[in-house]
Amino acid sequence: MNTARIEKVIGNMRKHGLSQILVTSPANVFYLTGVWCEPFERMLALHVKDDGTLKLYANRMFALQGLTDVPMIEYEDTDDCVAVLAPDIAPGKLGIDKTWHSHFTIRLMEARPDVVPALGSAPLDEARLCKDAEELELMRISSRMNVEVCGRIAKALKAGVTEKEIQSLYNEIALELGASGPSFTPLICFGPNGAEPHHDSDKTALKEGDTVIMDVGLIWKHYCSDMTRTVQFGAVTDEQKRVHDIVTAANRAGIAACRPGVKMKDIDLAARKVIEDAGYGPYFTHRTGHGIGLDEHEFPDCSSVSEVVAQPGMIFSIEPGIYLPGRFGVRVEDLVAITEDGCEVLTDMDWA
Amino acid sequence: MNTARIEKVIGNMRKHGLSQILVTSPANVFYLTGVWCEPFERMLALHVKDDGTLKLYANRMFALQGLTDVPMIEYEDTDDCVAVLAPDIAPGKLGIDKTWHSHFTIRLMEARPDVVPALGSAPLDEARLCKDAEELELMRISSRMNVEVCGRIAKALKAGVTEKEIQSLYNEIALELGASGPSFTPLICFGPNGAEPHHDSDKTALKEGDTVIMDVGLIWKHYCSDMTRTVQFGAVTDEQKRVHDIVTAANRAGIAACRPGVKMKDIDLAARKVIEDAGYGPYFTHRTGHGIGLDEHEFPDCSSVSEVVAQPGMIFSIEPGIYLPGRFGVRVEDLVAITEDGCEVLTDMDWA
Repeated sequence: MNTARIEKVIGNMRKHGLSQILVTSPANVFYLTGVWCEPFERMLALHVKDDGTLKLYANRMFALQGLTDVPMIEYEDTDDCVAVLAPDIAPGKLGIDKTWHSHFTIRLMEARPDVVPALGSAPLDEARLCKDAEELELMRISSRMNVEVCGRIAKALKAGVTEKEIQSLYNEIALELGASGPSFTPLICFGPNGAEPHHDSDKTALKEGDTVIMDVGLIWKHYCSDMTRTVQFGAVTDEQKRVHDIVTAANRAGIAACRPGVKMKDIDLAARKVIEDAGYGPYFTHRTGHGIGLDEHEFPDCSSVSEVVAQPGMIFSIEPGIYLPGRFGVRVEDLVAITEDGCEVLTDMDWA
Repeated sequence: MNTARIEKVIGNMRKHGLSQILVTSPANVFYLTGVWCEPFERMLALHVKDDGTLKLYANRMFALQGLTDVPMIEYEDTDDCVAVLAPDIAPGKLGIDKTWHSHFTIRLMEARPDVVPALGSAPLDEARLCKDAEELELMRISSRMNVEVCGRIAKALKAGVTEKEIQSLYNEIALELGASGPSFTPLICFGPNGAEPHHDSDKTALKEGDTVIMDVGLIWKHYCSDMTRTVQFGAVTDEQKRVHDIVTAANRAGIAACRPGVKMKDIDLAARKVIEDAGYGPYFTHRTGHGIGLDEHEFPDCSSVSEVVAQPGMIFSIEPGIYLPGRFGVRVEDLVAITEDGCEVLTDMDWA
């Protein structure tokens, strides 16, 4: 377990008035214990108290024997896992990790009406917000690999190839280079499909004149990368070029605003303003970016309502886009790491 | 939307004393509306009341315009999504889907102290329990494709190939055959790695004498398959052969017990008893199986504590295993569909 991180989290717990929390997401448990466990639908919970005691509740099948420095309670598939955990919770407020499945929370409330569930992720979110030197280096490597794979799939674009094939090629090359896998299902969108920001890649075949969005990321030693490049296949219309230029300018403006002391909402605004000024405001339908690290999407959002202030070590995406329904979409995404006086772009800026 | 299914769910709501539920998992929302939406960390919620009214709350970015027959409230990334939903909930008990992220539930409780969250998945679980003819046919196709891909990766086993490479090959062939993707990350385990039931495939290279576990599944038109085959690479020891024979016999015994009227716990026992009688009971560390359909793991468990009674149309896995820490593991998994007088094995039985 990582004592420095646990101390930081306990400090954050006090700040938020939480004397106990349940840490349940694989990334949060890893951050504190050094052990990665994906529980799927089964229960995984690390009970952290502000007196510094920790106890991990895990299915016996997870085989976490390697974890010797955290007391562990193992349960079996046939046990009522919540009943194993419930007696150990102190009465009163209990911070609960944001993604814990609601049925665990509801069963715990039913078993322990004297326990009051509260939002419990902030102590971890805030600890993970600023990456340390080791984390930053892993994030750099993850992004460097991602740039390489993205460049290679771009070279494989040819008439008739399908979104699914390019998606599959991304995964293949990422594994080949040593990634443990993609950090999310690669979003490969041809032509009008690019107008849906979360289009599921399908058998659409690439054809002359298509705008191609490649939104991809991989995992290197548990650290996620994420980038988007939009390229034109074949001839480009004036409008396609104009929209691409606007989005690129918005991306650059967002990045230019990234330095310590600036609020996320002002970084969002810097990018958004470029698109609004160009008259495409209604077609930029999402936040400008999101934090990233052990999770592909993590605290904080870079959105127009986020009051979070940029600090050295924070890593997040700048990914403005314009989506023209039924026609095409353009998104350009880079990851930035806030430095002492500005930011470092982890993805290759020249690769617009 | 599917009126027959909605009526069935409302009937189940009444049975469970729930006058309103929030349906939030992509599979459950698809089951009722015909639209598949993966919201990731964003909120997706279908509010179903027992008077038959439905309302869907979705991020504008999900672009669910195709859904014309369900009233929809769209919110934006900058909205407090829970605040958009909260006013519409009726006071009193509210059933909440099991996997909804706890922070939504907690925020809803804070916004509406007059609402009492309750376990809310049973009406959907019970509706989805018995597959109709169309679903059964999709499950058959999904399994048939899975058998084909599994056979092809088995042929690719050769000295030096890594778990990751076989995993990647599975994904590739599945996509090639038209699957939308794997239904879970293929579990490919060589030698001692097979002794961890949930081993993450890595760069371990295959070598003479290794026992190989291939636990794989794919998605065909939203329906998941799942099967496990264990094969021996090169020479086999007496013990490896004996353990494989015991697990195969356990799998067969479990399948033989599958018919209408039998409780899941008795099917579990039928498989488990074979392993216990052979002296390997402590090394079979998980339930015998799980329901499957739109989700890769769904209600019910086939475990020693499940009182659920087999009925025609139910589809679940029979997957006993023996795990010898540090040495090797064997698991043999088939999917069965309960028929009027027994069961149909969806995976190819001869492929043991």
